[in-house]
Amino acid sequence: MQCQSTGNIDITGCRISLYPMCDQFAPQILAAVKSVDTSAVWSHTDLFSTLYRGEQISVVDAIRALFMHAYHADTHLVSELTFSKGCPGDVDADRYLTGQQLQPNLAQLPADFPINCKFSFYSFGNDDYMQEIMHIVELANQSGLNPQSAHYITILEGTAQQLFDYFQAALSYAHEHLNHYVLEATISVNSPSLKGEQHAKK
Amino acid sequence: MQCQSTGNIDITGCRISLYPMCDQFAPQILAAVKSVDTSAVWSHTDLFSTLYRGEQISVVDAIRALFMHAYHADTHLVSELTFSKGCPGDVDADRYLTGQQLQPNLAQLPADFPINCKFSFYSFGNDDYMQEIMHIVELANQSGLNPQSAHYITILEGTAQQLFDYFQAALSYAHEHLNHYVLEATISVNSPSLKGEQHAKK
Repeated sequence: MQCQSTGNIDITGCRISLYPMCDQFAPQILAAVKSVDTSAVWSHTDLFSTLYRGEQISVVDAIRALFMHAYHADTHLVSELTFSKGCPGDVDADRYLTGQQLQPNLAQLPADFPINCKFSFYSFGNDDYMQEIMHIVELANQSGLNPQSAHYITILEGTAQQLFDYFQAALSYAHEHLNHYVLEATISVNSPSLKGEQHAKK
Repeated sequence: MQCQSTGNIDITGCRISLYPMCDQFAPQILAAVKSVDTSAVWSHTDLFSTLYRGEQISVVDAIRALFMHAYHADTHLVSELTFSKGCPGDVDADRYLTGQQLQPNLAQLPADFPINCKFSFYSFGNDDYMQEIMHIVELANQSGLNPQSAHYITILEGTAQQLFDYFQAALSYAHEHLNHYVLEATISVNSPSLKGEQHAKK
């Protein structure tokens, strides 16, 4: 469900989709999915995305690993992420809430690399949502990701490791202060537009 | 900005990104962008997406055209859309709010084709957001798109024309009843997973 009934508010979930823009996209996705140690999270892959759910720190660990393993130096790759917490319909997988905050992938990540990212943070059921967005954006500034405003999004630039460290910090802040929130992010690497080809400009 | 200051609440905007999963992704995107008649909308392309803003009906017209022109029968294509209205920071382009509700692309669209879609509807600053989501999903049912629940999303299936007609209906309902809302959708065509290859399964 998008959101219904009563769920477990301690579960963080994230959907991640990988879009390698090359003829051999399928093996690139498959190899990355197989590289992730999913022992600390509930996981499921459907037509659109791979979904990890569990303790926030373990979910970010799995997402970081999947994205970083999907990187190929010669491929334009875009990844779409939806972090969600507090959705009233988010049940199941309580067994992963062990309090152990495991990060089984952290020690075996590939080398870091530059990224560009757009993201939006959404908070529900409260009137102060604009102020919460501003705080989340300020955290990006503190993380050295140089947040820039654009229509409907905030733009970030940095490295993959910096970005996932920021997601961890932003989600931790949200967990402390908010009941139900979503962070939507799109990460781009190796875009030809960065080299001046401006493939999507007209 | 994601959302700041006082804006024009009559402006609908949509960001659309195209991800053709093939080596020749750049010309495929470029040709589609060039095919759209943008006379009725404000338009801008950045590193991540193309953005159209103006009257809702004209924005959906431009988005429908861009997506349908990007379709190639032999390519797995995913498109990410963010419709937004009522964002307090959404200013500029007032000149497109003519009341004429133009749809300059409608008469020159390519042939229709099947799609799969995931979407989430978000409403801000009100306590009844769960009920509004349920109504938006019910509209998908009435549109024959067979909505199915999954974690954080609703899944739809049908044709491109059916889907964009539904987006028009859903956004019209939201315009009547809500102040600030976002509809996030991801559309997939020609996925090898549909043929049983299950490229992203493990």
